[in-house]
Amino acid sequence: MGSTGVRIAIDAMGGDHAPGEIVAGALRAREELGVKVLLVGDSQQIEAALPPKINLAQVEIVSAEEAIAMDEEPLSAVRRKPKASINVAMDLVKKQQADAVFSAGHSGAAMAAALLRLGRLPGIDRPAIGTVFPTILAGKPVLILDVGANVDCRPKFLEQFAVMGSAYSQCVLGTNEPKVGLLNIGEEDSKGNDAAVRAHQLLRENSQINFIGNAEGRDVLSGNFDVIVCDGFTGNVLLKFAEAVGGVILQILREELPQGLHGQIGTALLKPNLKRVKQRMDHAEHGGALLLGVAGVCFIGHGSSQAPSVFNAIRMAKEAVDNKVLQRIQSQYQILQSESG
Amino acid sequence: MGSTGVRIAIDAMGGDHAPGEIVAGALRAREELGVKVLLVGDSQQIEAALPPKINLAQVEIVSAEEAIAMDEEPLSAVRRKPKASINVAMDLVKKQQADAVFSAGHSGAAMAAALLRLGRLPGIDRPAIGTVFPTILAGKPVLILDVGANVDCRPKFLEQFAVMGSAYSQCVLGTNEPKVGLLNIGEEDSKGNDAAVRAHQLLRENSQINFIGNAEGRDVLSGNFDVIVCDGFTGNVLLKFAEAVGGVILQILREELPQGLHGQIGTALLKPNLKRVKQRMDHAEHGGALLLGVAGVCFIGHGSSQAPSVFNAIRMAKEAVDNKVLQRIQSQYQILQSESG
Repeated sequence: MGSTGVRIAIDAMGGDHAPGEIVAGALRAREELGVKVLLVGDSQQIEAALPPKINLAQVEIVSAEEAIAMDEEPLSAVRRKPKASINVAMDLVKKQQADAVFSAGHSGAAMAAALLRLGRLPGIDRPAIGTVFPTILAGKPVLILDVGANVDCRPKFLEQFAVMGSAYSQCVLGTNEPKVGLLNIGEEDSKGNDAAVRAHQLLRENSQINFIGNAEGRDVLSGNFDVIVCDGFTGNVLLKFAEAVGGVILQILREELPQGLHGQIGTALLKPNLKRVKQRMDHAEHGGALLLGVAGVCFIGHGSSQAPSVFNAIRMAKEAVDNKVLQRIQSQYQILQSESG
Repeated sequence: MGSTGVRIAIDAMGGDHAPGEIVAGALRAREELGVKVLLVGDSQQIEAALPPKINLAQVEIVSAEEAIAMDEEPLSAVRRKPKASINVAMDLVKKQQADAVFSAGHSGAAMAAALLRLGRLPGIDRPAIGTVFPTILAGKPVLILDVGANVDCRPKFLEQFAVMGSAYSQCVLGTNEPKVGLLNIGEEDSKGNDAAVRAHQLLRENSQINFIGNAEGRDVLSGNFDVIVCDGFTGNVLLKFAEAVGGVILQILREELPQGLHGQIGTALLKPNLKRVKQRMDHAEHGGALLLGVAGVCFIGHGSSQAPSVFNAIRMAKEAVDNKVLQRIQSQYQILQSESG
């Protein structure tokens, strides 16, 4: 595949398997998607992680002398280390030398660096972290936001999340008129805490989005919603629970299925099918998380990201750039502001 | 099995399958557990639901002329209908004619009736709804509270939940020194919103419980915690998500496993093992939810409860009575108050 011209700045130092797996995923994306990858980090470590047969002239390494560790306080670390790989990657977007950033490093640091280096989109009070869950309907994922950037959310933040999430669902996930839900503890309009009741009303009155009502916990994976908005506390608990539950159930399957002779034979016959089940449930297959509301396309991977997740996240980033998701959010948001103004 | 003397008041009119499945579960509990069941509701409907061979003299029916529907506003309905089955059942406990209540009806109405008829335990500001989840470790469930009674929680409510949950885990689940966690978005003490940070501190300082720190969403099913406390908004979202996710994954298994000839044969061989997987994941097997903090033992079943879940809930209620869970909560709470006073 030829170059599409999309340039992705990769924080090669971020993540448990950096730089090896990060570089491997990035090179695969370059190969298969035709994107240009800018590997940001310690040049020596990145070069050592390159496969021996690679043509060095084709790989662009952008040197960054520092990195932010997972246990550092994000805002102060981002301020104290201007040459950290995540900062240098964000700067490439700011200087229009890259179109998007990917990092599997400290997600708080990525958020802080994006805010400090790129700033927020006009009209957005708080950026959110969005993530895509698989649903019971194959090929019909749901975007959940916020999953951790804002532990407390005012109702108007949730409204902004809904507008941004709708734009993303249209541009990147290809959804026509995304169905938006508000995560809540009942279907009725009056359910939930004060913030939820007021957010429900704002969403109901917003003509820019297709708000179909409250989504309960049981509705998240139903496929009935394309976008679900929530505060970052509830969203983060839900995300981490959802990530773990697949593993728990696979563990139970591993323990229970091979019991008895029939069980052993049956399980052996099912090996490839069980692998397909795992893939369909695997959150990483769906491309990690994204920052919505900052003035740049920023994808963040799980700290445990390996090459396939890195590849998937870069694929999503390319889609976001190709389909002009930032411009879409901004134009929708301007209409929203002029309507309410 | 002979009578243990434990008397359970059953709201025979509550739930989607009332009175048929409720009565069936209650009669099985009477038979297998030796409890006395008081069937509360419309006498004619209850009698019609009894199996033909039953000796009517052995069944105690307590007539209640009204019932509360799922779509009624709980507090006003409970006030407006003093003769509703849930109110009559609570009154039996108040009059010491029953030791515990079970209802699969409107859970908000059960909570309201418990509060109005039985009142709170001394020193408890807000009762909570607790529910037991299976974990990755077979036979080692975790108690989560609150899962819906209090959408906003002050830190001291969370502390009370922890004390009550520990007592319940010891008395009913047989846990030695239950490990208590605070549901939060990170492991570090300083993580979360203001309420979470302050709750963390209160829990840390409380010598009555074995607080081991924050529990993230991924830790809920890990088996590392015996009791996890949270606000009722987050807890309710988590509960409903958890209830649904098992079904979603079983659906994916049903779609993916039988594909291809090997898949069909393997799946056929695994039928009994798959059933065991379902049972181990099934929330209903673990006995529904309970109200903690009211002056009576109250268990509430899912609206969709059928006889096996009703039976399991009654079994838990019997354990709670036999092991004097209310007395345990009160004595722990009195020590706590005198320590902090």
